[in-house]
Amino acid sequence: MIKRETSVDEILKEMREIINQMVPKEAKITEVEFEGPELVIYVKNPEVLMRDGELIKNLAKVLKKRISVRPDPDVLLPPEKAEELIKELVPAEAEITNISFDPSVGEVLIEAKKPGLVIGKNGETLRLITQKVYWAPRVIRTPPLQSQTIYSIRQILQSESKDRRKFLRQVGRNIYRKPELKSDWIRITGLGGWREVGRSALLLQTNESNVLVDFGINVAALHDPKKAVPHFDAPEFQYVLKEGLLDAIIITHAHLDHSGLLPYLFRFNLFDGPIYTTPPTRDLMVLLQKDFIEIQQSNGVPPLYRPKDIKEVVKHTITLEYGEVRDISPDIRLTLHNAGHILGSSIAHLHVGNGLHNIAVTGDFKFIPTRLFEPANSRFPRLETLIMESTYGASKDYQLPRDEAEKRLMEVILRTIKRGGKVLIPAMSVGRSQEIMMVLEEYARIGGMEVPVYLDGMIWEATAIHTAYPEYLSRHLREQIFHEGYNPFLSEIFHPVANSNERKDIIESREPAIIIASSGMLVGGPSVEYFKNLASDEKNSVIFVSYQAEGTLGRRVQRGLREIPVAGESGKTEVIKVNMEVHTIDGFSGHADRRELINYVARVKPRPERVITVHGETQKCLDLASSIHKKFSISTRAPNNLDAIRLK
Amino acid sequence: MIKRETSVDEILKEMREIINQMVPKEAKITEVEFEGPELVIYVKNPEVLMRDGELIKNLAKVLKKRISVRPDPDVLLPPEKAEELIKELVPAEAEITNISFDPSVGEVLIEAKKPGLVIGKNGETLRLITQKVYWAPRVIRTPPLQSQTIYSIRQILQSESKDRRKFLRQVGRNIYRKPELKSDWIRITGLGGWREVGRSALLLQTNESNVLVDFGINVAALHDPKKAVPHFDAPEFQYVLKEGLLDAIIITHAHLDHSGLLPYLFRFNLFDGPIYTTPPTRDLMVLLQKDFIEIQQSNGVPPLYRPKDIKEVVKHTITLEYGEVRDISPDIRLTLHNAGHILGSSIAHLHVGNGLHNIAVTGDFKFIPTRLFEPANSRFPRLETLIMESTYGASKDYQLPRDEAEKRLMEVILRTIKRGGKVLIPAMSVGRSQEIMMVLEEYARIGGMEVPVYLDGMIWEATAIHTAYPEYLSRHLREQIFHEGYNPFLSEIFHPVANSNERKDIIESREPAIIIASSGMLVGGPSVEYFKNLASDEKNSVIFVSYQAEGTLGRRVQRGLREIPVAGESGKTEVIKVNMEVHTIDGFSGHADRRELINYVARVKPRPERVITVHGETQKCLDLASSIHKKFSISTRAPNNLDAIRLK
Repeated sequence: MIKRETSVDEILKEMREIINQMVPKEAKITEVEFEGPELVIYVKNPEVLMRDGELIKNLAKVLKKRISVRPDPDVLLPPEKAEELIKELVPAEAEITNISFDPSVGEVLIEAKKPGLVIGKNGETLRLITQKVYWAPRVIRTPPLQSQTIYSIRQILQSESKDRRKFLRQVGRNIYRKPELKSDWIRITGLGGWREVGRSALLLQTNESNVLVDFGINVAALHDPKKAVPHFDAPEFQYVLKEGLLDAIIITHAHLDHSGLLPYLFRFNLFDGPIYTTPPTRDLMVLLQKDFIEIQQSNGVPPLYRPKDIKEVVKHTITLEYGEVRDISPDIRLTLHNAGHILGSSIAHLHVGNGLHNIAVTGDFKFIPTRLFEPANSRFPRLETLIMESTYGASKDYQLPRDEAEKRLMEVILRTIKRGGKVLIPAMSVGRSQEIMMVLEEYARIGGMEVPVYLDGMIWEATAIHTAYPEYLSRHLREQIFHEGYNPFLSEIFHPVANSNERKDIIESREPAIIIASSGMLVGGPSVEYFKNLASDEKNSVIFVSYQAEGTLGRRVQRGLREIPVAGESGKTEVIKVNMEVHTIDGFSGHADRRELINYVARVKPRPERVITVHGETQKCLDLASSIHKKFSISTRAPNNLDAIRLK
Repeated sequence: MIKRETSVDEILKEMREIINQMVPKEAKITEVEFEGPELVIYVKNPEVLMRDGELIKNLAKVLKKRISVRPDPDVLLPPEKAEELIKELVPAEAEITNISFDPSVGEVLIEAKKPGLVIGKNGETLRLITQKVYWAPRVIRTPPLQSQTIYSIRQILQSESKDRRKFLRQVGRNIYRKPELKSDWIRITGLGGWREVGRSALLLQTNESNVLVDFGINVAALHDPKKAVPHFDAPEFQYVLKEGLLDAIIITHAHLDHSGLLPYLFRFNLFDGPIYTTPPTRDLMVLLQKDFIEIQQSNGVPPLYRPKDIKEVVKHTITLEYGEVRDISPDIRLTLHNAGHILGSSIAHLHVGNGLHNIAVTGDFKFIPTRLFEPANSRFPRLETLIMESTYGASKDYQLPRDEAEKRLMEVILRTIKRGGKVLIPAMSVGRSQEIMMVLEEYARIGGMEVPVYLDGMIWEATAIHTAYPEYLSRHLREQIFHEGYNPFLSEIFHPVANSNERKDIIESREPAIIIASSGMLVGGPSVEYFKNLASDEKNSVIFVSYQAEGTLGRRVQRGLREIPVAGESGKTEVIKVNMEVHTIDGFSGHADRRELINYVARVKPRPERVITVHGETQKCLDLASSIHKKFSISTRAPNNLDAIRLK
């Protein structure tokens, strides 16, 4: 079949002409190019465009593109010079802690303890900076905790800025390879995470585009590659990979079952395109991916990918804030919305085929307010197909109300402390850990609990990332931090565990303590170490506060396993008796429970035509699908991996 | 992932050793090779193996392969010499009409009017022939009508015998590339003919194999390539074609909506593997494909493929009789069963993954006895998924009982004849035409009707093919032909129309007549010609006896269209008034009606776990699926094209 194709160059030429007509000459446009999902206008006098707030808006409307204006690289002051000037312009009371430059977008990031003073009255100082240094200034509050992850990501983007710009242009040209298209058909294939939890991966295809939503790994099934990783053997996926047709990967949130296999694609040169996600998800997933291969390494298993593959993930990630609408292919437009599950977690809304169909993929979500986050977004401009998680989808999967859960948690903790025991709370380093921290902090601050809370695994680093993105936290928490000036993450009850010696000290100490350690399912990570050493003493308690997947040690202990064979130090198998108290308190999950799931379908606007239940054990997906069908008369499906569903 | 692979050569080596142990030395084995789905043993003394009837059976059991024994090409007498000898050995009363040689399988085909005399008492003559000429003799009764199609197919196979043998070896090596496999998963994708009639094409995939069932074209939608041909844009199909991974194509029957796009695959070198079907289907589909491109040509449309592409279809076809079980890939085994729809039509039974799953694809089928065929087979060794047609799947799609339909047909015919009119019966050249012929023949023979029946289009040639395969006809018809010595196809009421002059004569004659002409839906072919010329005269009648697809002229006339714009001879649009009587008599369909469809599910043994309804308009597929689910509590689906369903 012959298609009449307009080349990107032709499209760009037309746009340049329009821009030249609309933008005053004195702005001195030097270049117009697609970079990622944006049309970037390079000018020698960015100030001219800043003066007229309407101009860019009007251009965007006329060109139907997201537009960025950037200073021409030639006019930028050298970074050292610029830094000097900025420090002169900003009053010392602003307490600038760091200035860093991102040449790939001509941006200077100014971190200050009092960002308001960097901006100045009515943005005057900022405007001055722009005029003098030409770099576009972005001001953020200095995070109270230093995150190594954020620092190294920034380093990568800075040092690779040339490659990065080349990459963005290539992505832009791919997105706009054709004028806006109406698709002939749309379909989705489950590569993983359908009728199961773990290895989430959904392939969305039209006759023009191919997009993945999530690309996870099931860490509880690593012994069986056929179950641990998404279906590389799905013929349509093989085709897309072999022909290099994958337009984009969207990551809904950072947990490994949604993001854990991304670096693998770079290791084997299977993908060279953009990854779309929120800034916190980028940072957290990089943290978790690193943690994952380090645990593999320390277990003597050859890691699935290398640190440099994770670096490629960073280089290929394009971040979007909630609500930003972006073209990601000629016929697919993406918006990320808050999912309320963990920091930066999002519901991916896909507008496909120029109005043909709208899909929301919830990823993991929560639909009640938690200590950390607002409930998931439930309003979309349009919606025909809702693809939702079903972790707690069965009819009896009701969780305790939060206050009840907190009460029970504290009862177990206080009882254990009283008898001189230790409390182990296995929790994913990202998500439940911080939620539990907030509970403990309040009980310490208000209730007067005096016992150290040790944070082991990547929890401390993950917490630092939380403090860097206060705008992603709940309104309540933001108020506390900004208006009341109190940041609960910084409470002195929290003690990061720096190394295995400190871990040993904590285990051997006779003092009561609370230990929050990853992994949450006792699969690798320090929680297993603590568990092995604390299990035999009946004074201690272990409290499970999150979902325990089939096949994990956590699940088996939860189910009542009382003797655990482990490889002893000599290599021989030893048996650990579980004498400690074992508790499961189910009110802390970051997943919507049955009530929330049903409630979400009732509330979501507009009402979808079709609901597809995924991310749950078979019976949960089936139960949820059938209940939704009965209750709302909406067409539902609970498909298998490798099923492909035509949406239109 | 690393797979431990045994090469074909290793497998063959092992088999040769076993064969050498079991077969007596004096047979003089010269070669053992896979050819198509068979293991072929070449020997210098085939007679040795023929003597011991059990030996081949035992070998087959031990090797788990279908085994053929062939004379070593070196010992074969030259054809002229062999022909001479055969004529000496067979008594003249046998009336040999043709002797032809197929060097690719070392076979000599002897056609005789009295085949029993070629075989001889207890097969004595045949044995003598084998001993003297070494070619393996196959004896058939000389068909009473000469089929040009059969003749030319035989010619092709003979002249291309070298290529053909190479091809068969290549196919054999592909099928047995690995030892019998257990599949990880099995799925089917609808490339066409799901929730529609036309362009039937189903892709069956496992992690090892890729097989197509049918590859049709929708001749009623040729103006829109997106609807006329199967979904070449399905990513998994693109992958299979691009990587040359298609193991086989199975054709359930000859109609163009099931076989019509096959030659296209050869035209563009998209496929080089085997086509499995019954011998009559091969012959009939070649006839219909030729007819199709000739009609395109005569309509001034560039044909979709060339005669030489149809020749490739012949060269790539491996025929199977009903009930023959054959491996067609390392994990798929095929058996064709009678479908009762048209000559050679079959239900494809697929045994997948070494016992993992069994699928029956009905193709088009009929579940009551007709004048021509036995009802479809409904017993399978195993069956989990039944994929069935739904042409008459809606709850009101009951057809007239046959006798009632015949009565109504004759009423209209006799009434029309009486008033001096002509009766036009548009019918597919293969199927309904012969069924109606049988009705008319009986009414002429017994009821004394005296009016010529003209057969136009490829009907006469198709009828000739019917007479060549009496074993595919109903028991009743076979009895009539063999035991009563009367062949109703040869009745003198039938007159083939040889060319457009004869057609003109028939139209212009004032005598009453019955005209059976293709196509059955008034889409191309002589029926349109007759219709245009007979429509305005109220003395005439048109009788629709088969399914009229949406969008066809037949459907519009059936629905009451009374003015038809046509391109007149001058090129200007003219309007034809439809004054003739328009009748639809629905009892002659080759498709199971609603009652038969439901009955089939009730009767099929074993009871399937899942029924998938296809090949019907959307509502018919949905209605049938939902009724079967309610009635039998079997899981059902009525999927869309491009849906992929995981079966296991």
